Amino acid sequence: MQPGYLGGDKHLTTAPFYIPVQEKILEVETKMREVATDHHPDLGAAINHLLASGGKRVRPAVALLTGSMLGADPEKTVSLAASIELLHTATLVHDDLIDGAFLRRGIPTLNARWTPGATVLTGDFIFACAAKLAAQTESVELMYKFADTLATIVNGEITQMFSRDAVYSYEEYLNRIYAKTGSLFVLATTAPSILSPMRDSTYESAEQFGYGIGMAFQIIDDVLDFTGQPSSVGKPVANDLRQGLVTLPVIYYLEDNPDDPNLVRMLNQESLSENRLGQLVSAIQTSGAIERSIEQASEFSNQALDALGTLPFTPEHEALEDLSRYIVNRHR
Amino acid sequence: MQPGYLGGDKHLTTAPFYIPVQEKILEVETKMREVATDHHPDLGAAINHLLASGGKRVRPAVALLTGSMLGADPEKTVSLAASIELLHTATLVHDDLIDGAFLRRGIPTLNARWTPGATVLTGDFIFACAAKLAAQTESVELMYKFADTLATIVNGEITQMFSRDAVYSYEEYLNRIYAKTGSLFVLATTAPSILSPMRDSTYESAEQFGYGIGMAFQIIDDVLDFTGQPSSVGKPVANDLRQGLVTLPVIYYLEDNPDDPNLVRMLNQESLSENRLGQLVSAIQTSGAIERSIEQASEFSNQALDALGTLPFTPEHEALEDLSRYIVNRHR
Repeated sequence: MQPGYLGGDKHLTTAPFYIPVQEKILEVETKMREVATDHHPDLGAAINHLLASGGKRVRPAVALLTGSMLGADPEKTVSLAASIELLHTATLVHDDLIDGAFLRRGIPTLNARWTPGATVLTGDFIFACAAKLAAQTESVELMYKFADTLATIVNGEITQMFSRDAVYSYEEYLNRIYAKTGSLFVLATTAPSILSPMRDSTYESAEQFGYGIGMAFQIIDDVLDFTGQPSSVGKPVANDLRQGLVTLPVIYYLEDNPDDPNLVRMLNQESLSENRLGQLVSAIQTSGAIERSIEQASEFSNQALDALGTLPFTPEHEALEDLSRYIVNRHR
Repeated sequence: MQPGYLGGDKHLTTAPFYIPVQEKILEVETKMREVATDHHPDLGAAINHLLASGGKRVRPAVALLTGSMLGADPEKTVSLAASIELLHTATLVHDDLIDGAFLRRGIPTLNARWTPGATVLTGDFIFACAAKLAAQTESVELMYKFADTLATIVNGEITQMFSRDAVYSYEEYLNRIYAKTGSLFVLATTAPSILSPMRDSTYESAEQFGYGIGMAFQIIDDVLDFTGQPSSVGKPVANDLRQGLVTLPVIYYLEDNPDDPNLVRMLNQESLSENRLGQLVSAIQTSGAIERSIEQASEFSNQALDALGTLPFTPEHEALEDLSRYIVNRHR
C-alpha cells in the first residue's frame, strides 16, 4: 500500500471504491512528482513534502472513476486527475499561509518552515504545473473550465475574507462551500465527460453528480469539525468556530437557539473564554443540528446518486456509488 | 489618449510603434477590466487600481504587432495580449508583496493597502483570469506555453530567492533575466506565431525575436536602475543593489574592479553605510560598465532585428523594428 495517497485516514485504506483505480492513482502520484523536474531542487522537495503528507486523493479517484466510466482517454484522464490534485494542493499552500496554519494532517505546512515569500512562490509554481498537466489533456474546453474553477475557488475565499462575519444564511453557506469544494468536484466529474466520446449526453449528469458529492463532502467535513477526534482530523475540535467561521451545524443550531448567549457573543465578534466556547461546542454537539446537517449531506449524496443513475453502468459506476455513500458515512 | 496604457512614461506617449495597434490596445484594456465581472466587487476594484497605475503595455503591443504581422486571428490576438499583461500583473502583485514594496510606478501597491492574505488571493485570481483569457485563443499549444512560462518565471524567482548571494556570473545573470523578462517576451512573440497560419515557418524567428528584445529590455531596465531619474522609474537610484541584487552593470564593474572595498563588503553581505553605497553607485555610474551593458543590450536588440528580418514585411514589422531600437535607446 502506498502511504502517499492513503494518508493517515484509516477509514480509507479499506474503502473499496479505490480498487478499480488503484494502479492509475499510482500513475497520478508519479505525474505529480515529476512536474518539478528541471526546476529548482527545493521546489521538488517542497512538492514531495506536500504530497507525502497525504491527503485522501478523493478528487483524483473521482476523476479517474468518472473517466473510466465514460470511456475517456486513460492517459489524458491521469493527467487531468493529477492536475486537479495539484490545483487543490496549490490552494491549500496559499490557504495555510494566509491562515497561519502550521500543521495540516499532522504534518508541518510549508509556511511552518519557509518564509512567506517562498511559500507564495511555491503555490504559484504548483498552479503553473497544474495548468501544464491540464494542457496535456489537449482540450481547450477543459482548460477553460480548469481556469474558471480556480477563479471560482479564489473568489470564494476573497468573499469569505471580506465578509466573514455576515454569513449565517443557509444560502450563503451553500455558495461558500460550492466555491471551496463543490466547484473542484464538479471539475473532477465534468472534465472527464469533456474527454469522453459521450460528452454531450453525459455532461449535465456528470455536473449534477459532482455537485452532489462535493457539497455532501464539505458538509460532512464541517460536521467532523464538531464530532471528529482531534487526532483523526489533525485540528482542535470546532476549529472553524474558533476561527469565526460559521458552518452548517452552527447555522442550524442558531435557528433553534437564536438567544444562546455564547453564540450571540461569538457572532458579535466578542471574544469567548475557552470555558464558554466549550459550552457552546457541547451545546451544538448535543443538539439536533449535527443530525440535521448529516441529513442535508445525505440529501446531496442522494441527488448525486440520482444523477449517477443516468450514466453508464460499469464497475466504476458501482465504485462511485460506494464513494457517494462513503462520503456521508465517514462521520460515524 | 488613454492614461491606462500610456502610464506616466512620457517617452512612450510619442513612441510611434504603438500607432498600428492603438485601437487594439484599447480592446485589450477593456478585456482586462472585464475579467472580474461576476466576482467580488473588491476584486474588480483591485484590478482597476492595478491597471490604472499604468505600465507601458509593451508586452501587449509586442503581441498585437507580431500577431498582425503574422496574420493571426485579430480577436484571439487581443485575448492573448490581455492574458499576457494579466499574467505579468499577477506576478508583480506577488512580487511586491514578497519584496514589501509599497509603491510601483509611484502608485501604492496592493499590499500597501490590503492584508497579505487578500494580496495573495488577488494575485491568484488574476492568474486564473489570465488563464481564462489564454483559453479564449482556443489553442492547446498556446495554453501549454502560457503555463510553462509561468513555471519558468516563478522558478526563476525561487532560484533567485534561494541563492541571491551567489549570482555574479554573466551566465547566471542571463538565466535570471530570461526567467524574469525574456520568457514572457518570448511568449508575446511565439504565441502569435502559434495563432498564425504561418506557424511552422515563423515560430523559430519569432522566438529569437522575442528573446532578443526581452533580454535587451531587462538589461536596459537594470541600467536605468543606475542612470534613471528616481522620479521616472519610481524607485530610489540603485534600488536593486540596495536589495543585494547583482545586475549586469555590477557584474561588469566587478570584472574591472574586483577589489573595490565597498563592493567586496556588499557581496559579503556586510551592511554598507549610505555614504559608502553612494560611493559605490557613483563608481559604477562613471565606470565603463554602464556603456558596456548598453552595448550588450544593443547586441541582443540586433539579434532580434536579424530574426525579425526573416518575417513578413508589413507596417507592423516596421513598428517592431522601431520598438526594438526604442527598447535600447530609452536609457537616453
